[in-house]
Amino acid sequence: MQLLSCPGFAAAGLAAGIKKNGRKDLGLIFCERPAAVAGLFTRNRVQAAPVRLDRERIPRGRCRAVIVNSGNANCCTGEEGDRRARRMARAAAQALGVAEEEVLVASTGVIGEPLPIDCIEQAAPALAAALRPEGIADFAEAILTTDRVPKGVSVERETASGRFRLTGVVKGAGMIRPDLATLLCFLLTDLEAEAEALRPLLAEGAARSFNRITVDGDTSTNDTVLLLASGASGVGLAAPGVREAFREALGEVMERLARWVVRDAEGSNKVVDIVVRGAASEADARRIAEAVAHSPLVKTALFGEDANWGRILAAAGRSGAEFDPAAVNLYVGPVQIVAGGAGCGKEAEAAATEVLRAEAFPIVIELGRGPGTASLVTCDLSIDYVKINADYRS
Amino acid sequence: MQLLSCPGFAAAGLAAGIKKNGRKDLGLIFCERPAAVAGLFTRNRVQAAPVRLDRERIPRGRCRAVIVNSGNANCCTGEEGDRRARRMARAAAQALGVAEEEVLVASTGVIGEPLPIDCIEQAAPALAAALRPEGIADFAEAILTTDRVPKGVSVERETASGRFRLTGVVKGAGMIRPDLATLLCFLLTDLEAEAEALRPLLAEGAARSFNRITVDGDTSTNDTVLLLASGASGVGLAAPGVREAFREALGEVMERLARWVVRDAEGSNKVVDIVVRGAASEADARRIAEAVAHSPLVKTALFGEDANWGRILAAAGRSGAEFDPAAVNLYVGPVQIVAGGAGCGKEAEAAATEVLRAEAFPIVIELGRGPGTASLVTCDLSIDYVKINADYRS
Repeated sequence: MQLLSCPGFAAAGLAAGIKKNGRKDLGLIFCERPAAVAGLFTRNRVQAAPVRLDRERIPRGRCRAVIVNSGNANCCTGEEGDRRARRMARAAAQALGVAEEEVLVASTGVIGEPLPIDCIEQAAPALAAALRPEGIADFAEAILTTDRVPKGVSVERETASGRFRLTGVVKGAGMIRPDLATLLCFLLTDLEAEAEALRPLLAEGAARSFNRITVDGDTSTNDTVLLLASGASGVGLAAPGVREAFREALGEVMERLARWVVRDAEGSNKVVDIVVRGAASEADARRIAEAVAHSPLVKTALFGEDANWGRILAAAGRSGAEFDPAAVNLYVGPVQIVAGGAGCGKEAEAAATEVLRAEAFPIVIELGRGPGTASLVTCDLSIDYVKINADYRS
Repeated sequence: MQLLSCPGFAAAGLAAGIKKNGRKDLGLIFCERPAAVAGLFTRNRVQAAPVRLDRERIPRGRCRAVIVNSGNANCCTGEEGDRRARRMARAAAQALGVAEEEVLVASTGVIGEPLPIDCIEQAAPALAAALRPEGIADFAEAILTTDRVPKGVSVERETASGRFRLTGVVKGAGMIRPDLATLLCFLLTDLEAEAEALRPLLAEGAARSFNRITVDGDTSTNDTVLLLASGASGVGLAAPGVREAFREALGEVMERLARWVVRDAEGSNKVVDIVVRGAASEADARRIAEAVAHSPLVKTALFGEDANWGRILAAAGRSGAEFDPAAVNLYVGPVQIVAGGAGCGKEAEAAATEVLRAEAFPIVIELGRGPGTASLVTCDLSIDYVKINADYRS
């Protein structure tokens, strides 16, 4: 991971003692001047205290800092949880000398345990003192839970109106599903922009990225995506050529981060695009893609590198979508293994098995019924997924 | 398993060479006189050839025999698959000297491979010769795939109008989900009844049993439940006291078989009732029960015997049902672990962990919002589930 620092921002990450294993668990992003901010949050009806606090504060459209902890989700923690989320923001505000309403918060980790707020309050001054432009790498590490590696992507773009940068970091691993498939994602740019202009771009980027990935069908109570614009480049989003370049850069960064979340997901060994074409409608295409992408039988077959196309058809068949099974074509990578609803034989399956050995490939389902298309990115269901999630709290 | 033979029926099971491991894979039920028959089939849009054939034949309401193979689903096998399903029925008809339209068929196993019809045709005479009243135990063995044990239940009931018997056998293991959660189930009674009278009773029994269990959220392409009445007892379903006694017996037998399917499911170690009370509506209650019962994170926590109630609340929260998270109470067996949306503390969790060590227990979710209730029976998601399903075809 090679991350570019983003002008106008400093970041830090350290071990505050929230995680039992002594790893980094507290991160901070500081904006030298008030940054424009847009956010997206989980649609789960159960929402963590930090999500509720951010929802309250983000309509202001401006913020000075984001403080994030891992190791504890501060969710299902009642009114005391809300108070501790506020205390967490206040600790950062005091250490930074900014107003507490200008601080956003995020948490990830175990649900239902009291947030160890004392650790956080004690660590806040050291965290503020550690802020550096290149601190984003430490920050990326501090927000991890069962992730295997820190995940971040930076791009720099030249436009007719000047150059800008965009750096994103993400934390994923479990509880990943469309409708905000990541737990936490922070995107920093040095463009000059208003919050209102950022919001639709962020929503569009999410539709193309995090809302198209799925690991286990479970959505988190803490999902948070924040986009902050410092303005330090002096390049305005509204200037000629900038908006298009930024939309494209944001889409690329978010899509790369989303795929990385799948690749780094709990126990994941494969990144698989489930592509549905020719469905009666887009909704039907989406139904089939979701049924296939979430099917434990399909996902264990992917883990076993088994070209078990019958499971794919069976999952499509129970999706509720309308189609004629006798018209279905199926491809694994470039290899067709089903034609007109029936298998293409042992040779095709052997060729498909070769494709399945790769780390990433598409599975394409053609229904020949209408114009509906959809695609999702999923991963396999491995023995390690079960091990990790059976042992997570112990 | 102690199975009573059912007067009017004989059965058999043997190894015909369909399975590579030499186990029994072909079963036959023979009705001495034409039996009344009712059936339920998968709602999956992809339907196996034997299901299509049975759907065509069952409106007659009478049958003389059922021939069943395991090791091959005869699904996604095109028109040749339909022809082979017919040949399978014909082989039984010829061996038994009955009309082929009076024979029903069922298949279970791998999807998409040609049914080895030659094995079946060659074995049919020996199968017919092996028919015995007690042969139902061999039959129960012949229909298994990844099941660990043969599963059957018999009851005998005394009514004011006489005594009757009901014997059911089932094959489950994978691809289990509401809307016909078993692959194959055969129910035999010696009552005298018309097919029209059996149909609603069978549907009612399924609603109480197979449509309430879930292993992995995948429905099969081959699900088949058949209820056959030989009339050999001379006791009529319409006689005083019989209908109620039979409804009750059928409900009990189907529910016991359904729970057994969950207990014997691929890699299953726990049978868990997910009970939802106080939802805004029955549909909402069902949504929550399904989201929780299918959640890989909940199911791996069950495997890990971890009282991770946060995952249960998070799954409920993404179900789409309306409720106030701050009003939720949660019980594991008799132990309350969530009150008003927040955890009841370490002591309650320790007590709940004790309950989780058992093989069977309920998880009760109270929403305090309305009259909606629902319940589902599910199992844990274990390392063995992944192993079995990753290796199934190899």
